[in-house]
Amino acid sequence: MKAFAMRKIGQTGWIEKEAPVCGPMDAVCKPIALAPCTSDVHTVWSGAIGDRCDMVLGHEAVGEVVEVGRMVNDFKVGDRVLISAITPDWNSYAAQEGYAMHSGGMLSGWKFSNFKDGVFGEYFHVNDADGNLAHLPEGMDLGAACMISDMVPTGVHGAELADIQYGDNVAIIGIGPVGLMSVAASAIRGAANIYAVGSRKNCADLAREFGATHIINYKNGDIVEQILDLNRGPVDKIIIAGGDNDTFAQAIRMLKAGGRIGNVNYLGEGDTVGIPRAEWGCGMGHKLITGGLMPGGRLRSEKLARLVMSGRLHPERLITHRFNGFENVEQALMLMKDKPADLIKPLVLV
Amino acid sequence: MKAFAMRKIGQTGWIEKEAPVCGPMDAVCKPIALAPCTSDVHTVWSGAIGDRCDMVLGHEAVGEVVEVGRMVNDFKVGDRVLISAITPDWNSYAAQEGYAMHSGGMLSGWKFSNFKDGVFGEYFHVNDADGNLAHLPEGMDLGAACMISDMVPTGVHGAELADIQYGDNVAIIGIGPVGLMSVAASAIRGAANIYAVGSRKNCADLAREFGATHIINYKNGDIVEQILDLNRGPVDKIIIAGGDNDTFAQAIRMLKAGGRIGNVNYLGEGDTVGIPRAEWGCGMGHKLITGGLMPGGRLRSEKLARLVMSGRLHPERLITHRFNGFENVEQALMLMKDKPADLIKPLVLV
Amino acid sequence: MKAFAMRKIGQTGWIEKEAPVCGPMDAVCKPIALAPCTSDVHTVWSGAIGDRCDMVLGHEAVGEVVEVGRMVNDFKVGDRVLISAITPDWNSYAAQEGYAMHSGGMLSGWKFSNFKDGVFGEYFHVNDADGNLAHLPEGMDLGAACMISDMVPTGVHGAELADIQYGDNVAIIGIGPVGLMSVAASAIRGAANIYAVGSRKNCADLAREFGATHIINYKNGDIVEQILDLNRGPVDKIIIAGGDNDTFAQAIRMLKAGGRIGNVNYLGEGDTVGIPRAEWGCGMGHKLITGGLMPGGRLRSEKLARLVMSGRLHPERLITHRFNGFENVEQALMLMKDKPADLIKPLVLV
Amino acid sequence: MKAFAMRKIGQTGWIEKEAPVCGPMDAVCKPIALAPCTSDVHTVWSGAIGDRCDMVLGHEAVGEVVEVGRMVNDFKVGDRVLISAITPDWNSYAAQEGYAMHSGGMLSGWKFSNFKDGVFGEYFHVNDADGNLAHLPEGMDLGAACMISDMVPTGVHGAELADIQYGDNVAIIGIGPVGLMSVAASAIRGAANIYAVGSRKNCADLAREFGATHIINYKNGDIVEQILDLNRGPVDKIIIAGGDNDTFAQAIRMLKAGGRIGNVNYLGEGDTVGIPRAEWGCGMGHKLITGGLMPGGRLRSEKLARLVMSGRLHPERLITHRFNGFENVEQALMLMKDKPADLIKPLVLV
Repeated sequence: MKAFAMRKIGQTGWIEKEAPVCGPMDAVCKPIALAPCTSDVHTVWSGAIGDRCDMVLGHEAVGEVVEVGRMVNDFKVGDRVLISAITPDWNSYAAQEGYAMHSGGMLSGWKFSNFKDGVFGEYFHVNDADGNLAHLPEGMDLGAACMISDMVPTGVHGAELADIQYGDNVAIIGIGPVGLMSVAASAIRGAANIYAVGSRKNCADLAREFGATHIINYKNGDIVEQILDLNRGPVDKIIIAGGDNDTFAQAIRMLKAGGRIGNVNYLGEGDTVGIPRAEWGCGMGHKLITGGLMPGGRLRSEKLARLVMSGRLHPERLITHRFNGFENVEQALMLMKDKPADLIKPLVLV
Repeated sequence: MKAFAMRKIGQTGWIEKEAPVCGPMDAVCKPIALAPCTSDVHTVWSGAIGDRCDMVLGHEAVGEVVEVGRMVNDFKVGDRVLISAITPDWNSYAAQEGYAMHSGGMLSGWKFSNFKDGVFGEYFHVNDADGNLAHLPEGMDLGAACMISDMVPTGVHGAELADIQYGDNVAIIGIGPVGLMSVAASAIRGAANIYAVGSRKNCADLAREFGATHIINYKNGDIVEQILDLNRGPVDKIIIAGGDNDTFAQAIRMLKAGGRIGNVNYLGEGDTVGIPRAEWGCGMGHKLITGGLMPGGRLRSEKLARLVMSGRLHPERLITHRFNGFENVEQALMLMKDKPADLIKPLVLV
Repeated sequence: MKAFAMRKIGQTGWIEKEAPVCGPMDAVCKPIALAPCTSDVHTVWSGAIGDRCDMVLGHEAVGEVVEVGRMVNDFKVGDRVLISAITPDWNSYAAQEGYAMHSGGMLSGWKFSNFKDGVFGEYFHVNDADGNLAHLPEGMDLGAACMISDMVPTGVHGAELADIQYGDNVAIIGIGPVGLMSVAASAIRGAANIYAVGSRKNCADLAREFGATHIINYKNGDIVEQILDLNRGPVDKIIIAGGDNDTFAQAIRMLKAGGRIGNVNYLGEGDTVGIPRAEWGCGMGHKLITGGLMPGGRLRSEKLARLVMSGRLHPERLITHRFNGFENVEQALMLMKDKPADLIKPLVLV
Repeated sequence: MKAFAMRKIGQTGWIEKEAPVCGPMDAVCKPIALAPCTSDVHTVWSGAIGDRCDMVLGHEAVGEVVEVGRMVNDFKVGDRVLISAITPDWNSYAAQEGYAMHSGGMLSGWKFSNFKDGVFGEYFHVNDADGNLAHLPEGMDLGAACMISDMVPTGVHGAELADIQYGDNVAIIGIGPVGLMSVAASAIRGAANIYAVGSRKNCADLAREFGATHIINYKNGDIVEQILDLNRGPVDKIIIAGGDNDTFAQAIRMLKAGGRIGNVNYLGEGDTVGIPRAEWGCGMGHKLITGGLMPGGRLRSEKLARLVMSGRLHPERLITHRFNGFENVEQALMLMKDKPADLIKPLVLV
C-alpha cells in the first residue's frame, strides 16, 4: 500500500509498505478524512519521540472498516468509524486503574505514529476494535468527526484536569486548536470568566465565539499582570495548552490557593519544569499541578460525538483549510509546519 | 414595620411587627426586589414545615443594607446586595465538613421563613453578613439577581448532585423554575442529550431555549418508556426537580448501572420513598441516590452571579410576571398558589 | 470432568460434564482451594437468579493454570493463581467508565455460577486471563487467598462506597464474612468508632479483633436507638452487609445529614426498598445511598493480596472449618446452608 | 503576663506582655501542655516568615479556658481544650470553598506565632472559639492531645493529599514527627507496602511500629533506586514530609503514571522546585503534584481525637522528652533546635 511516512528525523516521504495484518480483536480501516497534528510536526522535525524509520504518520482520522478480526462483535466491513488517537489495551493494569492512556507504560496508549504505523496510509490497523472504534453518527460533519480523534478529547481533558466548577474564573494559556477546544470545554463545564491567552487573530476570534470573555495578548504586557488586573486577583483554575516549561511559573503566579493547573501541552524540550517556591505557598498552598494525555477509546469518542450532535460543541469551526484527495495529506502537514496566519487546522477528505 | 406573613396554616395577611435587631456580625436590609417561592405556598397552605404564627414569609430577595453590625467588614449601609435563601452558621460542624446547609441540624441552614422571619418585610435580618451577603454586580438585571437567592443555586445543585460529566445523557424530571435552571445548568456542565420532563408549554419552550434536546410529556405515554426509546437505553444521570415520592421509582427504571440521581425536590408528603429492588440491581447496581438542599452563602452567590454576568445563564428568562410596589408581594404569592398557565415566576420590584 | 452443580432450584448434585474450552485470551484452571458462598446457597435454594440446569456452582477459588490461550501474555501452565469472582470484559463501555462489574449489563461482570459454569469442577474457565487472574504470592495462606475471590473485595467495597474518612464513626450492619471484612476495611481506612451489628458470638469476637469498638446486638433493644445513644447522635457513614430491604430505613434513621450508606448486601426478595421520607430530610438531607457489586479483575486482586502480605488484613481468620479433598465441597456448601453456630466460612483444600 | 518570645531573627527570650483581650466570639486560654515545633526553630533562626519583634512563639498546646466572649456557645471557663495550630475565619471565601487554612490569604489560617502571638504565654488568645477549640476527651494522654495541634493533622493531611487507596504502595520521604504521623496515617488508610525514608534509628524504629514495611536509608545508596528495586517498579503514591526542593525530582522519578505526590513539608529556601520534564511524562503522565497546609478547626481536632481514643493512632509515642513547668518551654525549644539523636518530640507539662 501507499503511505505518507517519516523517513527519519527531519524527512518525510511517500513509501510503499505492506498493508497491516488484522488480529482477532482488531480492525483494518481505510481513511475517509485525515488531519495532521502539531505532534506529527514535532515527531518529524524536532525528533520529539526519537528517530523512526519509514513510520507512517498521522493519528487523526475518520475511517471505513475494511476487515475485522473474528472476535470483534460490534463492527463490520463497511462501517464508518471515529478513530481515537489513543487506543489502549483495556485489560492492562493502567486501564483497570482508570488510566488507560498509560496502558503498557507511561504514555503508551498512544500507539499511532509512535509505536506503530499511523493513519496516513491507504490502510491502517486499529487494535481492539470493540474497545477503540466508535460508529460515525449519521449526519456528522467529517471535519468535526476528525477532530474527535485528538483535538476535542485533548482540549476537553484540560478542563477535566483543571476540574472546572460552576462560576470558576479560568485562564487558558494557548489557543491553538487544542486550547480552543479547552475554551469551548470550559464554557460548557460552568466556567464564568475565561481568559484566553494568545496572539493570533483568527484564533482569538474563534476563542470568543467558543466562550472566552477576555483575550490576553502578550504583546500588551505581561500576561500574568493583565489577568490579575482584569480578574482583580488570582484565578480559580488554569488550563495549559501551549507555551513551554516556563509557562508553569506564570500559571502558579496567577493561581489562587486551592486552585488547579491542568496541562495538556506536550513538553518536548528542556530538563526541568520550574515551580516558583514562594508563589507555590512554600509547598503548602494547595495549588495542584497535573497534566495528562487524553483518555482514548470508544466510550470517550461516543460521548464527545454526542456533544457535537447535540449542538454543544462545534469542532468543525477549527477547520480553516479543506483538501480533497489522499495525496494532499502531505500539503496539509506542511501547512501545520509552516503555520500561515490564517491556519488553525487543515482537513483532508479522501 | 409592615410585613406580609403567614398568620397560621392556611392563612396569610399583612401584619405590623418590630423591625429586626442587628447583631454584631449581622445586617439589616430592606428589599429592592422580591419573589415568592413554591415553598412559601407549601409552608402556608400545606403546612409543610408545621404551623407558624405571624411569621414573615419569603426567602428570595435583592436588598439594600440599612444597618450592619460592628464586626462586619465587607458591607456598609447603602450597599445593594444579593441574598442567599440559605444562610448558614459557617463555624458549625456541618459547615466545616462541607455541608453548611445543614448547620445546626439537618436543613437548618434554611432560616428565612422557616426558623425566623423571611424577607417579605420592610426590613429583614441577615445573619453573618460577611458570610451570607454578596454585592449586587453593576448592571445586573434585578430579576436575574433575585433568582440567585434560590432558583439558580437549587437548579445548579441538582446538576452537581447528579455529577454530570461531558457527554452524559441526562433526564430532568420537572421543569418548573428549579427544573428549568437544572436544564440550563446541565447544558453548561457538559450534558449531551437532555430529556426534560414536563407538560406546560411555556416551560417546555424555555427548557428548549436553555438546552433541552427533547421534551417528554406524560400525556404522550409513560415517561420512562419514552425516554428509554429515545435514548436507546438507560440514561447516565437524572435530576429530580418535581414530582413526588413515586418519581424515584421511575428514575431508577431509566437509569443505567453506575448512574446517579440528584434530587432537589422537597418531598412534603407521604411516609416512604420506594426504590424498586430488582431495577436497583438488587442493591448491587451502583445506581446512586442523593438529594440535598442547595448550598448557600456568599461565595456561591458570587460565583453564580459571575455565570450570569458572563452570559452563560439567563435566569431572568424565568420571570413571566413583573409587579411594581411592595404591596404586590401578596398578589405575586397568590399567582404562585394559583399557577395560571402563563406563569413561571413572578417578580416584585419594591 | 466431574463437577458439583445446581441441578435445578432446590437441588444440587455431582455431574459429569465436558471440560471447558480455552479461548485465545482465556485460561483453564484446576482448583487448589475452594470455598462456598452464601450466594451459592441463595442461588440453589432460593432461586435468587432464576432456574439453572446442571450449572457448576462456586465462584471462590485458588487455582492452577492448566491451559492458556495464545494471546495470553502473563500466565503460563503451572502458575498458581488468585481468581476473582467477578471477571469483567475490560473493553466494554461499563469498564471504560469505571464500572467493569457491570460490563455487558447490570451485574453481568459476575459470570461464574451465574452466566457460566463456576469453579466447583475439576476444571474451570477464566475469561481474559491477563485481565482477571493474578499470581498467588509466595507464602500466602490458601485460606486468605481464597477469600480474595469475593469476601475481601466485597467487604472492602462497602467501605469504599460509604467513603470512610479519618475519624468517621461508622455503623456496619451485618457481621457475616462480608461484614467482618467491612469492619477490617473500615479500621484500615481511618474509621474511629465502629459499631458492628450482629448477634453471633464468634462473629462478634472476630469483629472486635478486626477493629470494631462496639458490638450491637438486636437482642438488647432497637439497634438504631442503641447506636444513637452510644454515639451521642447519628453516625457519619454506614455499611450494609446484611439484613434485608427494611435495613435501609434503620440506616437512614441513624445517619447524619451529609452521610453515606454503602450497601454490599444482595437483596434477593421483596419489591421495594423503603426510604423514610422525613428522616431522609424530605429528599434534601444529603444522605447518600448507594450499593454495588464488588470490582473484580487482576489489579484489584493484586492490591488486596498486597494488603494481606503486608499484614494489614487477615482474611484467613474467617475460616472456621477446613476440609481436605475436592469431594468435600458438597459438605462445605451444606455447612453454609445450615449455618452451625461455630461457622463463619469453610475452606476446601483440593 | 510572662511569655517566651522571638525577640528578632536569631534571638529568643522571656518577655512581659499585656495579656490578650477576648473578643465576642473568642476565648482566652492558659496552657496545660505545650510543645515546640520545627517551624518555631525555622521562624526564629532561619527567618522563614520574616522578622518579628517580641512575638510569642508556639502553636502546639492543650489549654484551659479562662475567658470566653459572649457569643461563644459551646465552651466555658474551666473547660480543658484541644487547640488547633490553624485557626481559620470560617465565614471567609476560602473556608466556604473548602480551603479554610487559606482564609484571608494563602496560608493565613496559620495565625499563632505567625500573624499574632503564639501559645507560649501564660495566656493566649483563640479566635472563633466555637469553630476552633475542641473539648479534651476524658482520659486522653496530654502528649497525644498536644500532638493533635499540628503533628497529627499535618501528617494525616499528607495521606489525604496523596489520596492513598487500598493496596497502594507508598513512599514517605522524611520520618521526623510529621512523617511518622504520615506513616501511621497511611497504614490506617489502606496502604500496603510503606517505604519510609529516613536515617535516624529511633525514628526508623517508630516508623516500623507505626506500619512502615521498609526503611530506606540514603546511606545505603540512592533512595530512588532502592525503592524502585524493592517495589519492582514505581510506587502508587508519595508523601513528602521532609527534604528540600530537590526531593520532588526524586519523587517524580519513582512515581508511576497516574500517581500522586502529597507534600506537607514547608519549603523555606530556594527559588524553584524543579520537576524533571521527561520523567514527568513530558507533562502528560498524570503524575499529580500537590501540597498544602493542614486543615484546622474544631471538627478536624475532634475527629482526630476520636482516632486516638479508639486506639487507631498513638501520637503520644512521638514524645521522647517530657518536662514539667512552663519555664522549660525554652529548654524544649532548644532541644528541637539541637536535635540530639534520641529526640523525636519534647513535651512540656505546665
